[in-house]
Amino acid sequence: MNDKFLEKLREKVLPYFEKCNPAHDVSHTDRVLNLALKIGEKENADLEILEVASLLHDVARHEQDDSKGAICHAERGGELAREILKELNYAEDKIEKVVHCIETHRFRKDNSPESIEAKILYDADKLDGIGAIGIGRSFSFAGTSGAAVHIAEVDVDNTEAYGKEDCCYREFLVKLVKIKDKMLTEPGREFARERHEFMVEFFDRINKEVRGEL
Amino acid sequence: MNDKFLEKLREKVLPYFEKCNPAHDVSHTDRVLNLALKIGEKENADLEILEVASLLHDVARHEQDDSKGAICHAERGGELAREILKELNYAEDKIEKVVHCIETHRFRKDNSPESIEAKILYDADKLDGIGAIGIGRSFSFAGTSGAAVHIAEVDVDNTEAYGKEDCCYREFLVKLVKIKDKMLTEPGREFARERHEFMVEFFDRINKEVRGEL
Repeated sequence: MNDKFLEKLREKVLPYFEKCNPAHDVSHTDRVLNLALKIGEKENADLEILEVASLLHDVARHEQDDSKGAICHAERGGELAREILKELNYAEDKIEKVVHCIETHRFRKDNSPESIEAKILYDADKLDGIGAIGIGRSFSFAGTSGAAVHIAEVDVDNTEAYGKEDCCYREFLVKLVKIKDKMLTEPGREFARERHEFMVEFFDRINKEVRGEL
Repeated sequence: MNDKFLEKLREKVLPYFEKCNPAHDVSHTDRVLNLALKIGEKENADLEILEVASLLHDVARHEQDDSKGAICHAERGGELAREILKELNYAEDKIEKVVHCIETHRFRKDNSPESIEAKILYDADKLDGIGAIGIGRSFSFAGTSGAAVHIAEVDVDNTEAYGKEDCCYREFLVKLVKIKDKMLTEPGREFARERHEFMVEFFDRINKEVRGEL
């Protein structure tokens, strides 16, 4: 693939991330790109489609955040990607492959990833939510939303937990533990299992530290 | 020690933490208390003085934050502790032992911890800044200050780094790595070495994840 095209694309994409929360800034996109390529190599996927789709997958994230969820960033991201790629004279058939990846990277019943590239982007995106980087993103996001740092005895049944009643550990127990079972590719599953184990160790450790045992 | 007195003291202390940043809320105080007791048992220290000093050590933290550092929370904390303990009719000689711990828990050349209880409080407070909980506190604080989640190639020489140029990894490389060498008790040093090793592993791991290697 033409590196100059990718450079130009990344430059065009950057402004879309300026107002994003640190957990969804352009570094998330770069990490997803690295992971997607690693999985893509193992799965003999189309690496060009993966690179372009990874760079563009969250361009509408700020629109979703600004609209408090009324706009779906996957759906809107597909539209924006089509516009951006047409402007760059990208081939029509490739555009549709990229758009399919972006539209389906946020899993919904009516629109699930079909191509191997879409499945890989889905896995890479979810993988960045777990492991050490997932822990970092989750603590950082907790900080931006006024949540506590850590509550060893957090109430997982309180689905309305907000502010000081909420914490990264709750996010782990309620949501992040499930990610390993949602992977769509075998390399994705392997990455997820290993990252999951690390999170389990991390929170086991933090609970021991809190009790003064470590 | 009279548990009812400690309960009453904790209740009296709680309002001082209401406006604190999550990294310095009352859970930090509780963790420092647990650690101080574990170290105190090993060092045959006066556990009552340690408990009272731990509960009170950060009562002036919000005054330091509100004054943007003009007020020293250790010095002011000593004054507040004296007032609070007098109100509770705590013995005069014990009050002075507690105040010494609080005044010196923020190390300064002109006022360093002399008693074993002061050294233990100092160590316990610093230990809560490292290990898994130190990582959590640092990412959370980074979130509240608009810092990036992670920059693998962060510029450690940029002492003015702020907002998106700053991140938890920079805090680790510049500040947290040094804590293990500042401990004042042998149990503190042991805890710190182990927690330090975990942080080294954590950031080594996060850098591998960012490159898509894990």
